[in-house]
Amino acid sequence: MRAAVMRDRKLVVADVPLPEPGPAEVLVRTLACGICGSDLHALKHADAFVANARRAGNPRVMDLTRDVVMGHEFCAEIVEHGPGTTRALPVGARVCSRPVLTRDTGPQTIGYSNDHPGGYGEYMRLSEALLLEVPSDVSTDHAALTEPMAVGLHAVRKAGVTPKDAPLVIGCGPVGLAVIAALGLRDIRPIVAADFSPRRRQLAVALGADVVVDPATMSPWERWRETAGPRPAVVFECVGVPGVLDQLMAAAPRHARIVVVGVCMEADTIYPMLGIVKELSLQFVLGYTQEEFAATLEHIADGRIAVASLITGHVAIDGLAGAFEALASPERHGKIIVRGPE
Amino acid sequence: MRAAVMRDRKLVVADVPLPEPGPAEVLVRTLACGICGSDLHALKHADAFVANARRAGNPRVMDLTRDVVMGHEFCAEIVEHGPGTTRALPVGARVCSRPVLTRDTGPQTIGYSNDHPGGYGEYMRLSEALLLEVPSDVSTDHAALTEPMAVGLHAVRKAGVTPKDAPLVIGCGPVGLAVIAALGLRDIRPIVAADFSPRRRQLAVALGADVVVDPATMSPWERWRETAGPRPAVVFECVGVPGVLDQLMAAAPRHARIVVVGVCMEADTIYPMLGIVKELSLQFVLGYTQEEFAATLEHIADGRIAVASLITGHVAIDGLAGAFEALASPERHGKIIVRGPE
Repeated sequence: MRAAVMRDRKLVVADVPLPEPGPAEVLVRTLACGICGSDLHALKHADAFVANARRAGNPRVMDLTRDVVMGHEFCAEIVEHGPGTTRALPVGARVCSRPVLTRDTGPQTIGYSNDHPGGYGEYMRLSEALLLEVPSDVSTDHAALTEPMAVGLHAVRKAGVTPKDAPLVIGCGPVGLAVIAALGLRDIRPIVAADFSPRRRQLAVALGADVVVDPATMSPWERWRETAGPRPAVVFECVGVPGVLDQLMAAAPRHARIVVVGVCMEADTIYPMLGIVKELSLQFVLGYTQEEFAATLEHIADGRIAVASLITGHVAIDGLAGAFEALASPERHGKIIVRGPE
Repeated sequence: MRAAVMRDRKLVVADVPLPEPGPAEVLVRTLACGICGSDLHALKHADAFVANARRAGNPRVMDLTRDVVMGHEFCAEIVEHGPGTTRALPVGARVCSRPVLTRDTGPQTIGYSNDHPGGYGEYMRLSEALLLEVPSDVSTDHAALTEPMAVGLHAVRKAGVTPKDAPLVIGCGPVGLAVIAALGLRDIRPIVAADFSPRRRQLAVALGADVVVDPATMSPWERWRETAGPRPAVVFECVGVPGVLDQLMAAAPRHARIVVVGVCMEADTIYPMLGIVKELSLQFVLGYTQEEFAATLEHIADGRIAVASLITGHVAIDGLAGAFEALASPERHGKIIVRGPE
């Protein structure tokens, strides 16, 4: 099959082996796959990505000397059922899935793996038990956004944020926008969101932010204080760049909770004493549960997570490398969707 | 009065003005004052201490060009009542207090201040409302340990640790020992504690640790896994030296909670991705409430916090600089108590 492949730390289009579905797995054809900032990071900081995963004790770390087909925000259609499947959904059904295979030997990642190609290839294997059928009135593109939007829902739930808290979202890329949507869904308001990019601030409003701030002209914390009153601060770090955590720890009020959603793959410097004198907490979050994933797809279907404005471009597999470059500029794009061949 | 003074980033013995008690304050004579690791840090990293406090937004940061009399772990006796006091406790009463003045203009620190001398001076002013009378059967030395022991109680409570959690204590200096005592008090067991020093491991057992580990011969996490079973990990960082947080984030199991009690005053490097892939949390803690402080004194009195073994030396004010040096070696000392003149 054709795929955009990470090979020698570069993206190339190449023919790679068609994945075969194992027991309880299905073969699917990729219909749409969103480009995630983590993929850009993983390509740019491939060695750091691997080193961190290894230090964290991940038993299956990708080998950079071998091909990797990334892409974990996908909508696909069933092509073939593997052995031992229930065939609850027929061939041709449109599906979403968490990007993971639930094998007997433990879960295995789809997309950051040498063995399990992601949505930047024409075909994938998925675990039948994780498949969610896409309702007929949800577009393929919107369904592909289930994954990034679920990240926001999980972050808000994992951090135990409630309407008693006053949220501040730092960074309005797709991760920040997902957090904004999830806060709105749970009516945790007012939502104050900050980004240097006017385009992203516009998207933040479209996703449900009540107040947006340009940090170049005003401190986000100052704006937050004006709107939050005496309620506890919960700040979402959705930038993922070294130095942001330190800035937040310095500026946050006492007892603030910092939820780290942006994925910083590099070393970062903090001053622990800043955390200590203000008794801050940092909650790092990742991914989502199956239930959160399913709830997100439902809310995309019922319109409570309004994803339409997020999608700003489409490319084919051979346009991926160019799209990665275009996404470096926040002014031009929200999400770019990679479309499979018709 | 005589005092050991931080002057030009050095400790010297000098005559300084006798503090005058303001409204609702009392003048006390220092009977005993424990030497805290934070004082050693504050002297060694005085500029970083001030810079961090300023960045954290502390409105009253000590001025290093002026004298500072440190010392915040004290037992004292009332000498004189200031204006507007209730005189609920008479002259001569032995008292403990949180090292803070509750003034109308906001709380002010005792000990890390140019204005309010701490227990390394012969006299202090204290807020009458914060005074706790020391029971007659509690020695002055033991009463002086209320402050460091309260730090442990607060850390365990602030982090919401319960008997469902399996604790690991990294570092068995006074802070780690206080955490061990607090865990024992709440029956959160088994308590696994790690320190390179045999002497400190011995103290850890005396304070209630169930299992002690020498990290030079075995990974503390390995020993923890053997004893904890499937219970959630809560690890207390009681070292306060750059690099420890990173080690803990790399070695901790998924969903571990890291409670940062050790005060690292320098910059520290972490890899946020380690936190993210394991969804770790970091809770920084500081100090204690009035209620926690009072409860700690009660538990020292009833013997449930067994502090006797901690005290390994005594000096007079003019021996403080030498004691700071002696405390750099963990083999020789637990707590050294500075005694006022008889």
